[in-house]
Amino acid sequence: MRIPELIARKRDGSSLSSEEIGHIVRGYASGEVPDYQVSALLMAIVFRGMSDEEIHALTTCMLESGAILDLSEFGLPVADKHSTGGVGDKTSLLIAPIVACADVLVPMISGRALGHSGGTLDKLESIPGFRTDFKLDRLRELLAINGVGLIGQTREIAPADRLLYALRDATATVPSIPLIVASIMSKKLAEGLDALVLDVKAGSGAFMKTVEDARRLAAILCSVGSRHGTSVQAVVTSMDEPLGNTVGNALEVAECIAAMRGDGAPDVVELSVELSARMIVLTSGDTLERARSRARGILESGQALERFARIVEAQGGDPRVVENAALLDRAPVERAVKATRSGYLAEIDCEAIGFAVAELGAGRSGVDGTIDPGVGLIAEARIGDEIREGDVLCRVVARSESAADVAERRIGAVYSIRATRVSRAPLIIDVVDPVGAPEVGGA
Amino acid sequence: MRIPELIARKRDGSSLSSEEIGHIVRGYASGEVPDYQVSALLMAIVFRGMSDEEIHALTTCMLESGAILDLSEFGLPVADKHSTGGVGDKTSLLIAPIVACADVLVPMISGRALGHSGGTLDKLESIPGFRTDFKLDRLRELLAINGVGLIGQTREIAPADRLLYALRDATATVPSIPLIVASIMSKKLAEGLDALVLDVKAGSGAFMKTVEDARRLAAILCSVGSRHGTSVQAVVTSMDEPLGNTVGNALEVAECIAAMRGDGAPDVVELSVELSARMIVLTSGDTLERARSRARGILESGQALERFARIVEAQGGDPRVVENAALLDRAPVERAVKATRSGYLAEIDCEAIGFAVAELGAGRSGVDGTIDPGVGLIAEARIGDEIREGDVLCRVVARSESAADVAERRIGAVYSIRATRVSRAPLIIDVVDPVGAPEVGGA
Repeated sequence: MRIPELIARKRDGSSLSSEEIGHIVRGYASGEVPDYQVSALLMAIVFRGMSDEEIHALTTCMLESGAILDLSEFGLPVADKHSTGGVGDKTSLLIAPIVACADVLVPMISGRALGHSGGTLDKLESIPGFRTDFKLDRLRELLAINGVGLIGQTREIAPADRLLYALRDATATVPSIPLIVASIMSKKLAEGLDALVLDVKAGSGAFMKTVEDARRLAAILCSVGSRHGTSVQAVVTSMDEPLGNTVGNALEVAECIAAMRGDGAPDVVELSVELSARMIVLTSGDTLERARSRARGILESGQALERFARIVEAQGGDPRVVENAALLDRAPVERAVKATRSGYLAEIDCEAIGFAVAELGAGRSGVDGTIDPGVGLIAEARIGDEIREGDVLCRVVARSESAADVAERRIGAVYSIRATRVSRAPLIIDVVDPVGAPEVGGA
Repeated sequence: MRIPELIARKRDGSSLSSEEIGHIVRGYASGEVPDYQVSALLMAIVFRGMSDEEIHALTTCMLESGAILDLSEFGLPVADKHSTGGVGDKTSLLIAPIVACADVLVPMISGRALGHSGGTLDKLESIPGFRTDFKLDRLRELLAINGVGLIGQTREIAPADRLLYALRDATATVPSIPLIVASIMSKKLAEGLDALVLDVKAGSGAFMKTVEDARRLAAILCSVGSRHGTSVQAVVTSMDEPLGNTVGNALEVAECIAAMRGDGAPDVVELSVELSARMIVLTSGDTLERARSRARGILESGQALERFARIVEAQGGDPRVVENAALLDRAPVERAVKATRSGYLAEIDCEAIGFAVAELGAGRSGVDGTIDPGVGLIAEARIGDEIREGDVLCRVVARSESAADVAERRIGAVYSIRATRVSRAPLIIDVVDPVGAPEVGGA
């Protein structure tokens, strides 16, 4: 199989066979196919896309390049959720204990902050002592203890994806739906799941800016999962403003603990319950209404918090954080960002908030950058709120006065206030099943 | 300058500045920019194209990566011609001596056979002893002797182009007009030309299948040459059937010698005179009519043949070939390809003829492949000819009976004979100047 001919076929808009895709991916992983040929192919894929069959083949190759968990010995259903990334999206910290309390195993292999988007691992590691750098053997032990393991991508999982991702990052070939889907799904399917619920974000703080694009991504993700034999469902949700009250690692952990004590922001609670319920439905066959009640009951009864404390302890963290938020880091400077006119809060450039918080230190500038767990933002106003000039829109939590200055300027500019009343869009926009029929109306 | 950001800009359809293009090309040549980033950029260029400014910048970088001839000490105008490649196109062998006899220096750095298309160097090397592997110092000496040097691309010229071309070949990024133009022009402009005449082929045997595409390529080539300050003109010519009577290296040399003895195929003579005349016009300011007469006179008077013999001798070849064609290799098997029906010869898949002749041994399968100088094809019928079943369409000259079998089958299938009369299109379709206005109508 001559690689330039395969590249030319994709360049000219044809599809590659599963065998051809496997030849390239395995060849790249083994060093037989040089990176310069793979990067040219990746760029051709950026322009030409891939068929569902091709994405499935690529996902399968990357999945099979590494270990695949088999948790059948536990005799319990296995489920996970994945979000396409947003600002202030902390639902994983609530969903993992809720779903585990419903007797579903949650082997959650998560990512780190990327660009304007936060990462579950970085949030968890703001808990003193909490570790996520475990291998699959330890994940299995964690699942045996609490039904949950919250770890980072290990080198055992989908090594071909890791290689390809590094190449994509260096060659401007990241923004390609087929490549994004294969990367996500190869890692998630390695968890040996019975069910996967996807939270596909749409809006100013999401990678997909429009609902149509999010719906398309959701449909492809569902198709690939379904072809693999996993029960999968995607919820398209709004990311036009930060989710909940806080953005930033330790701030978000504190917010989650408050939510598990009964003091959660309505959107965080709604989305966590909804995604948990769908994971329960897909693995139990229960009705959605009953699963929602069950998830909400686990959250409100304190069971979720109690499980969360045990998870923290099992992963080396200080479980007293659930009683004492002061154990979490918090940067010393707090700066109010105030409205400069009166009206209604109409729009927030949510991506710009994500980048501003990353610049405060909550994100990384490079792969080797360090994270400041104690910085972030506390939201005080939400889209649709009536605002008077001088009202506090949000509070910046910064390590220094100068960092607060920069963030205040940047964040002050992202709020659009209009004279006319504005209504907020629903949080849950659509549900996409593998069959592709939307459950609720949208857009 | 972050390379992934530059790749992303091209991927998204923006232009790169001269400085940015220079940064990448120089970085690639020096090893600072890795090949996997360059190949992704090349694929983005295949899809997005380049502006004239970008092509000019790329050409200039590649040109300036190597030596640029300065022939001003000779006190003579300097001109060359370049063809985009065809089947049976042997005009360089006539043009070089004709133009040199008109007191114009011709430092012709040529290429080898590529795909279905022949190469001037391979043709010349079918003359026993003829060498083309000279460096620029020797080219200068050859010019001093006969006003002509016919050599291959030396490593001194445009090394960045050589690197990029090898990468394009391995990554299916060859077919991109901006990249083709920059590659051609960086090598030609390194010859230190006052004038360049381009023969842009259009038709079934050309890289450009349509006249519109050929005209567009011609306009871009002219624009880049003109921006560089060189007088440039492009002639768009038909490549719907092989040029002249033969295809194949030694066969074509023999045909050229016959043409310089007054026994040339009309199309070969017409095109050679036209291109020579335009080189003379651009360097002398003479009228086209007078330059055509002069070129034709040089050819018909035997001056061109006499100069050709001297050129052969200066480059190590046996000059007696001009008297004795038997000194040229000729494979032993001759096989007639006959018409299987009567009618008019309407179409020839000229590219397929080129590939069939290459497969006989006149081309290379890989870069290291060897050439068989003595094989090829002798045309007996031309488009528009009335044909009777059993007439000879062409004769295959092959090394073995089995090779002749294969070629006979392949070549027999490329002739389309129709019942209705067919008229042949003109050879010279259009002339493109840097201002872009076609001189004669076309297509």
